[in-house]
Amino acid sequence: MTDINKYFKNITSKERAIFEAGISLGALYHQFIGTPISIETVQSLEKTIKESITLQPCITDVKINIDKTLIKTEENKLGYSELQGEMLNIKLTSQYKDETIIAKLEYIPKLQYPLMYIE
Amino acid sequence: MTDINKYFKNITSKERAIFEAGISLGALYHQFIGTPISIETVQSLEKTIKESITLQPCITDVKINIDKTLIKTEENKLGYSELQGEMLNIKLTSQYKDETIIAKLEYIPKLQYPLMYIE
Amino acid sequence: MTDINKYFKNITSKERAIFEAGISLGALYHQFIGTPISIETVQSLEKTIKESITLQPCITDVKINIDKTLIKTEENKLGYSELQGEMLNIKLTSQYKDETIIAKLEYIPKLQYPLMYIE
Amino acid sequence: MTDINKYFKNITSKERAIFEAGISLGALYHQFIGTPISIETVQSLEKTIKESITLQPCITDVKINIDKTLIKTEENKLGYSELQGEMLNIKLTSQYKDETIIAKLEYIPKLQYPLMYIE
Repeated sequence: MTDINKYFKNITSKERAIFEAGISLGALYHQFIGTPISIETVQSLEKTIKESITLQPCITDVKINIDKTLIKTEENKLGYSELQGEMLNIKLTSQYKDETIIAKLEYIPKLQYPLMYIE
Repeated sequence: MTDINKYFKNITSKERAIFEAGISLGALYHQFIGTPISIETVQSLEKTIKESITLQPCITDVKINIDKTLIKTEENKLGYSELQGEMLNIKLTSQYKDETIIAKLEYIPKLQYPLMYIE
Repeated sequence: MTDINKYFKNITSKERAIFEAGISLGALYHQFIGTPISIETVQSLEKTIKESITLQPCITDVKINIDKTLIKTEENKLGYSELQGEMLNIKLTSQYKDETIIAKLEYIPKLQYPLMYIE
Repeated sequence: MTDINKYFKNITSKERAIFEAGISLGALYHQFIGTPISIETVQSLEKTIKESITLQPCITDVKINIDKTLIKTEENKLGYSELQGEMLNIKLTSQYKDETIIAKLEYIPKLQYPLMYIE
């Protein structure tokens, strides 16, 4: 990891943690949105998202909850739905050196928007 | 499912099974390519791909094997790689009424191409 | 293309055209769903989807219409929306040898489903 | 945009610009990787990526260059390739209030990694 850190010399440890949290939230959203999902498969998809995002730099923990009620509400006549931004509730811990931040992804109905922010 | 079948009145049961197999192979490829992956997470990703694709119409079984050797070969200096077409080996069973077909996704080095075909 | 055709010896020309149409519809759906979109960018996204899918085997034409009314309805408080299955209306021509078929992707409200079928 | 800013009260303007840059780089990478591409379609794909990412909060400019030499090198026997991390060279301007930062996505051969960093 020595090599990579030289690219971040001009930002603080906190800024680095924030940058990496942003990358990982943007990545997981656009990687997994659209995945076919049902009540039976949701647990496995949560595990896969958590594990794949934890591989990325600085991410030390991912808590993810996909809304089971919405999976049922959005179910099509073929018995499944697809992963949508409204279903995602994510809490991600990003750490660089002595700085740790918590970033969240949460659907905000007033904004009609799956907002990513720093807690 | 009665409603949906009226859209397929002009094709045979075998053609329907083949069409749905094509959709599911194209879908899983473009949904999951790019996912961060490592030897530790591959099993969970295989399970998620299998489960999500089995939700789609006519798909009754999915066998998936992601190439562990390639995951190691393609590993970046941060300790993981990302899912690529070369890594995927998939066998998918698609059934409509009394017709069952096997479709495959397999990387063909001579074509430099992750080929999808009917077995 | 000689090499690739040997993998399809056991199916008819029409079945091949249908299989490739299925692949391309599944591919484009799961590649582009989730893309940020607005009235200003929709034309460029339509062009990109059409061009990228026309590269795939057997696809000779793609007509695509993304629902502009829905883009406005689904707009978030930040002034854009994201590409959803409900917005897509696609007509795809797939040809193998002397067989040509038309495949469609169309949202069917009664099924709450973006249905892919053969016309 | 007033509503959204209250979620960012606890970080500085520069941190906000950095966070949004991270989101947009992660988003575009995982949205578009895997797209079928050729020399004929690259210009349109560049335009679509630029336009869709410019819709996201704080992003005021996107310069994108997809490596044409690599598109040819990676071409399969069917005459096209697919968008890969190695092909992407992106420079993104992110601004919040009086703070502007430049973020980059660039493949670093020594790391075998498409690195996202702050210039």
